[in-house]
Amino acid sequence: MKIYFSGAIRGGRQDAQLYQEIIAHLKNYGEVLTEHIGQMDLQEDNLSDVQIHDQDMAWLTASDVIIADVTVPSLGVGYEIGRGLEMKKPIYCFYRGEKTSAMISGCQDFKTFKYETLEEVKGLIDGVFESMG
Amino acid sequence: MKIYFSGAIRGGRQDAQLYQEIIAHLKNYGEVLTEHIGQMDLQEDNLSDVQIHDQDMAWLTASDVIIADVTVPSLGVGYEIGRGLEMKKPIYCFYRGEKTSAMISGCQDFKTFKYETLEEVKGLIDGVFESMG
Repeated sequence: MKIYFSGAIRGGRQDAQLYQEIIAHLKNYGEVLTEHIGQMDLQEDNLSDVQIHDQDMAWLTASDVIIADVTVPSLGVGYEIGRGLEMKKPIYCFYRGEKTSAMISGCQDFKTFKYETLEEVKGLIDGVFESMG
Repeated sequence: MKIYFSGAIRGGRQDAQLYQEIIAHLKNYGEVLTEHIGQMDLQEDNLSDVQIHDQDMAWLTASDVIIADVTVPSLGVGYEIGRGLEMKKPIYCFYRGEKTSAMISGCQDFKTFKYETLEEVKGLIDGVFESMG
């Protein structure tokens, strides 16, 4: 199982530690293609924007499932969900707080879950992968 | 010409006044389907998230061109660009500041322009519509 994890990068790195924990948990279910998103000291200086975009799109295309944290507003996360949806990828979104974008929570082509704690999101992820059999 | 203007809503309303000015300028070139995005007092309480999503997707599908302000991180704007791209819509993105998401500036399927002032973005928009001629 190839898993594409999507989380905010330039828009906000405040959740990088949490992403790292989510990614560590996702590894119980397969290979996480975007493991770098959990790196606290993510360096992208040696890659051009085109290289970053094209690499992420190659991973998105190769993935079997997309797991997105949609807590922090992010152009990149929204873009990846939009493109993944048109590619017919299974998508599961997770967010903390009162609400996320209506474009995410209002889309009936994938499921969006609310969570509060790391333990809670890990449990929700377990449910998702168990339901995928 | 049907124009879909995309700007941040739940992620940030600080640019609503600017969006209003951009939308007013876009009206020189056609009908702006998403004129409400420039409303300072945008009320979405009487619509469900599903209604908001489905209405915006209907407008996106009906549009001839997508004009997006990608200054403020936004899941909705990223999602609309991702879906619009897969629908083969012409897309033009504009941002202020140092940089925008690599998923936007690194995508070679549409053009992204940097601007500083309202006058500058109006001039860039003029150039876009003149080139579409």
